[in-house]
Amino acid sequence: MKVSIITIGDEILIGQVIDSNSARIGQMIQDLGLRVNFKWTISDERSEILYTLSEAKTKSDIIFITGGLGPTNDDITKSILAEFFQSNLVFSEKNYSHLESLLKPRNIPITESHKSQCFVPEIANLLDNQMGTAMGLHIEQDQKIWFAMPGVPYEMEYIMKHQVLPLLQSKGLEKSSYYRTVHIMGQGETQIASVIEPLLQNKSQSIKIAYLPSLGYVRIRLTVDDNITPEIKKEVDQWIELISEKFGTAVYGFDDTSLPKELSKLISDNNLQIGFAESCTGGYLSHLITLIPGASQYFRGSIIAYSYELKTQLCGVLPNTLVEYGAVSEPTVIEMAKGIAKRLDLDLAISISGIAGPDGGTPEKPVGTVWIAVGNETDVKTKKLKLSKDRQRNIETSAYYAMILAWEWLKEHY
Amino acid sequence: MKVSIITIGDEILIGQVIDSNSARIGQMIQDLGLRVNFKWTISDERSEILYTLSEAKTKSDIIFITGGLGPTNDDITKSILAEFFQSNLVFSEKNYSHLESLLKPRNIPITESHKSQCFVPEIANLLDNQMGTAMGLHIEQDQKIWFAMPGVPYEMEYIMKHQVLPLLQSKGLEKSSYYRTVHIMGQGETQIASVIEPLLQNKSQSIKIAYLPSLGYVRIRLTVDDNITPEIKKEVDQWIELISEKFGTAVYGFDDTSLPKELSKLISDNNLQIGFAESCTGGYLSHLITLIPGASQYFRGSIIAYSYELKTQLCGVLPNTLVEYGAVSEPTVIEMAKGIAKRLDLDLAISISGIAGPDGGTPEKPVGTVWIAVGNETDVKTKKLKLSKDRQRNIETSAYYAMILAWEWLKEHY
Repeated sequence: MKVSIITIGDEILIGQVIDSNSARIGQMIQDLGLRVNFKWTISDERSEILYTLSEAKTKSDIIFITGGLGPTNDDITKSILAEFFQSNLVFSEKNYSHLESLLKPRNIPITESHKSQCFVPEIANLLDNQMGTAMGLHIEQDQKIWFAMPGVPYEMEYIMKHQVLPLLQSKGLEKSSYYRTVHIMGQGETQIASVIEPLLQNKSQSIKIAYLPSLGYVRIRLTVDDNITPEIKKEVDQWIELISEKFGTAVYGFDDTSLPKELSKLISDNNLQIGFAESCTGGYLSHLITLIPGASQYFRGSIIAYSYELKTQLCGVLPNTLVEYGAVSEPTVIEMAKGIAKRLDLDLAISISGIAGPDGGTPEKPVGTVWIAVGNETDVKTKKLKLSKDRQRNIETSAYYAMILAWEWLKEHY
Repeated sequence: MKVSIITIGDEILIGQVIDSNSARIGQMIQDLGLRVNFKWTISDERSEILYTLSEAKTKSDIIFITGGLGPTNDDITKSILAEFFQSNLVFSEKNYSHLESLLKPRNIPITESHKSQCFVPEIANLLDNQMGTAMGLHIEQDQKIWFAMPGVPYEMEYIMKHQVLPLLQSKGLEKSSYYRTVHIMGQGETQIASVIEPLLQNKSQSIKIAYLPSLGYVRIRLTVDDNITPEIKKEVDQWIELISEKFGTAVYGFDDTSLPKELSKLISDNNLQIGFAESCTGGYLSHLITLIPGASQYFRGSIIAYSYELKTQLCGVLPNTLVEYGAVSEPTVIEMAKGIAKRLDLDLAISISGIAGPDGGTPEKPVGTVWIAVGNETDVKTKKLKLSKDRQRNIETSAYYAMILAWEWLKEHY
């Protein structure tokens, strides 16, 4: 079973929109044992779309199309699909009822451009979309399965979850892919590879190793494509376990997880209350933790202390500490962490202060200098980072290293 | 001039990594008057890569390749490029010196896998990469220009900025694309289209309109591909101006900008001091504002008040207000905004409290109920949102509507 994705839209090509949809589709079909083999992103142009539909048909069994189903003139996917499948474009009463059910309760009048959304290729089944006016399309022809969905991420996701996945599940397709991932923090790709390559030298040829470096962590993935037997799956699982043993406490999780998720689980499992004092990360660490459902059970809150006043008045840093050592210093982050631990009654406090850039550095403290402290009112662990000149990268890296330090501190204390 | 991007990596296809690189490339070549016409994402497999290189050569003049230049065994791009261009893979002293210059100061020993990175196709020029060990490649053959870059975003960006763009600039390529964008907040795509379509009915055929809806705002883009004359550019600019006049204060910016950027500029231009009290958005609004360089000039800080205690003790909400109206209510967000405006001495305070979900709703206050207040110690404006059941979407939408409300409040007061 080969799977392709066609993403339609100039906005993706010129970079006004980042295509998160195809990543999401790739994740969502994993449980069915399917993987994406090929992906095209193309312009809203008839000839390009027709050419790519033919290519996709040649190279794959299941094809996902996103984009171009909306109500405006640049939405041409349906008319092109009708041409490609030599099917008439017909007015769908089902689609019109769908529009009415969505728009009437909100007192939005149905316009001509709304109505134009109701013309669909006769060959297509309509897929319900409770998140928006554009319904999805499902077409089967010549042993190929096609799905067309709107480009708006939460609409695409709704249709995938409620319509496409159950439909594919019901077909009992052969699994064509198996992969496992182990997450390792605080070490570089080359360093990790130098341990893993000799460790896995006797693995079966059909198992591929991939390294996915990110800021502060690396994901190692073992993949088998084709011939998915219970034996090869077991072998993959055993290698993953062996890697995990080898790297010990640097391993924070497996498969489709993340450091924020695993750290949150560790905190929740230990019934701890946490909070942060963030300066240079400006709320990004709090954001990562509060994205996880249920965060209110263990996250009390944070103080984003960008100014001196907030550091002293709310976090309890002594004015003299700021004068003597500066805002970006070990004594300051220690006082920030201990201060909020006391004030907010926390079991775990994290503080971060640094120079995110691009300006604001000095010879002694260049842009990218970041101090982190982690702990409670009496016992704090610190770390100094020397990062880059790039503001966004520094913010993200600091937040990840703060989570790594918190992980280590928790493993020592709980 | 047709431009293609080939992104290599299973991690993108299976959705472990979102491909932000190609969006960035699309943005970066805009100033050269170039646009991306076609993009492939493919597996780390020799036959797929070779097939796609041929396709790209047929369809385009400039081809960008990302991924597969790293030090590990899954990095096979260079050997495949050597095969495709029928060029030998040779050890590059220049690449080795580059490795030494990066690794020696950090006391990292040069390993065999590092050395394997130094084998490059003889036909290629090496492009400096100060962000990592993998150098970029530049190849010209049969009137086609090829660039291969590592998949790590900041490494790719470094090579683009310092090597690729100056090189393309020096070639004086013909401009093949011109586009302008106007950003409109607080209105839906269909609503906006129903105004714009009649307004622009006399535009030249070669100008295409595209609508890019996001959470809380829509970007409208006018594009011309091919035959870029001064007249057609002027016409595009005039239509953009006309749309802008028609939508008045709902327009917050043009071209490559964002609501956080424009709001920050408005705040900075008026010499204001701002801060937030965030509950359900959990720091996301603070993060959006502090991503902008120079934020410390006008952003004092925030209180992420997830718990009752932080709302009362730090934001100054009366305990009785929480008991009587609940944390998600108009009186609470008003007290939060006025409270921090006073406490942090702010000219503009924003407070947000809501039920992000997926759990925690009640019949009276279902998941997706969000209250926002914006103002100063004495004068506050509020808004209630009824959003979705999706946590991340609710967080992002709330932050954007808070910025829209702040924009409106500022336009009324300054």
